[in-house]
Amino acid sequence: MEAQAQMPGLVRGEGLTAWRQIADALIADIATGLYTAGQQLPSEAALAARFAVNRHTVRRALAALAEGGLVRASQGRGTFVEAAPLAYPIGPRTRFSEIVAGAGREAWGDLLAAATVPAGAEQAEALALAPGAPVLELLTVHRADETPLSTALTWLPLPRFSGFSEAYAARGSITRAFAACGVDDYTRLSTRIRARPADAQEAERLDIAPGRVVMVVSSVNIDAAGVPIQANRTLFAADRVELVIGG
Amino acid sequence: MEAQAQMPGLVRGEGLTAWRQIADALIADIATGLYTAGQQLPSEAALAARFAVNRHTVRRALAALAEGGLVRASQGRGTFVEAAPLAYPIGPRTRFSEIVAGAGREAWGDLLAAATVPAGAEQAEALALAPGAPVLELLTVHRADETPLSTALTWLPLPRFSGFSEAYAARGSITRAFAACGVDDYTRLSTRIRARPADAQEAERLDIAPGRVVMVVSSVNIDAAGVPIQANRTLFAADRVELVIGG
Repeated sequence: MEAQAQMPGLVRGEGLTAWRQIADALIADIATGLYTAGQQLPSEAALAARFAVNRHTVRRALAALAEGGLVRASQGRGTFVEAAPLAYPIGPRTRFSEIVAGAGREAWGDLLAAATVPAGAEQAEALALAPGAPVLELLTVHRADETPLSTALTWLPLPRFSGFSEAYAARGSITRAFAACGVDDYTRLSTRIRARPADAQEAERLDIAPGRVVMVVSSVNIDAAGVPIQANRTLFAADRVELVIGG
Repeated sequence: MEAQAQMPGLVRGEGLTAWRQIADALIADIATGLYTAGQQLPSEAALAARFAVNRHTVRRALAALAEGGLVRASQGRGTFVEAAPLAYPIGPRTRFSEIVAGAGREAWGDLLAAATVPAGAEQAEALALAPGAPVLELLTVHRADETPLSTALTWLPLPRFSGFSEAYAARGSITRAFAACGVDDYTRLSTRIRARPADAQEAERLDIAPGRVVMVVSSVNIDAAGVPIQANRTLFAADRVELVIGG
């Protein structure tokens, strides 16, 4: 009873540790909309004051929420509420910008790097080129309302798409960049999905903690004539996206 | 030069640490087929002798291979070479037993537990039942040549499938158990895919290290009349399976 008086909102002695009760209280706050997707949680100090515990206990509670993918700690900036995972349909007409816009969020793709490289065995096979043939390699990050959902390596045949990186940088969308290059329609030919922990670089690009899980999606797109125009290796932050097939 | 004489097969002073060189040598052994899928690697002591290093260095090399999903350490039994990931097509006609047999491997499903439970909100929606309606819940593990590829929770409507758990235990296959219950054909209606680290129990069922990644696949199957007959939450060991859509 004494402990209870000292710790408003927390009931001691019921078998739940203090950090678990704080985590549950914050989960309830998110569920009821007190804190919404993208919003920053109060500081550790403020939460420690609210629950009348020390900051170590708050940190443990926040770590549990981050582990469950409900919040993310952004280095030096604070802790932010994650949006519910975006349902991302995989099929013949998969388009990032349409999917994100359809969920009422703003889509944008950033071009981080572009280079002409010789096609590796995997890219050559996907694009029906000779190994070593020159391809345009792009490194991109794709955001919904500023939150990175995925980062991709993309390969396009040259010289056909020599203007693609400028078109993409200006338009922030693969679909719009293809249109600028004369490809009005394209279709997903195949998709393969694996999953693994992100490495440090990938985690930084996706603004997730190193070691959080990514879904690795390898895909090939073809133009209306059936010619392969794009091979992708896309890493989706697994906390932020649910891939949907059929239904 | 002195170091080289002491350490056959290892070249010191080239910037690669000893454990990395051992890891690379073992990767090459697996690639050339000296050690094949499912085979046990020599003991730490034997590998330490072969490379003339201490067991700590061997352990570091084996840990790197396990991290990359190339081998798995099975508690108390040793280190085993992982098979190349199985390509697992997801589509209207997805059937575990056919996919595994098609890869030349033997498929079997073990029934770990069966119970009648009230349908939760998710299962009720998937099976078009009222929440709380009785459903049969099965906990299963699905193997290819003894290696667990996935573990699943499956829900089936009652009383229609009251004989299902006995049929499954005897036949080791969902498809054959459905046939025994009068369902000659069924179709995958929808599939949703997420990914996260395995918890300790899941890891034990899949014979993977705790924290290794699982792909969480939620799916619904319908019978020839379009009636939902099965909701699944299947965890695939991400090191052992590549999900394939289209192509």
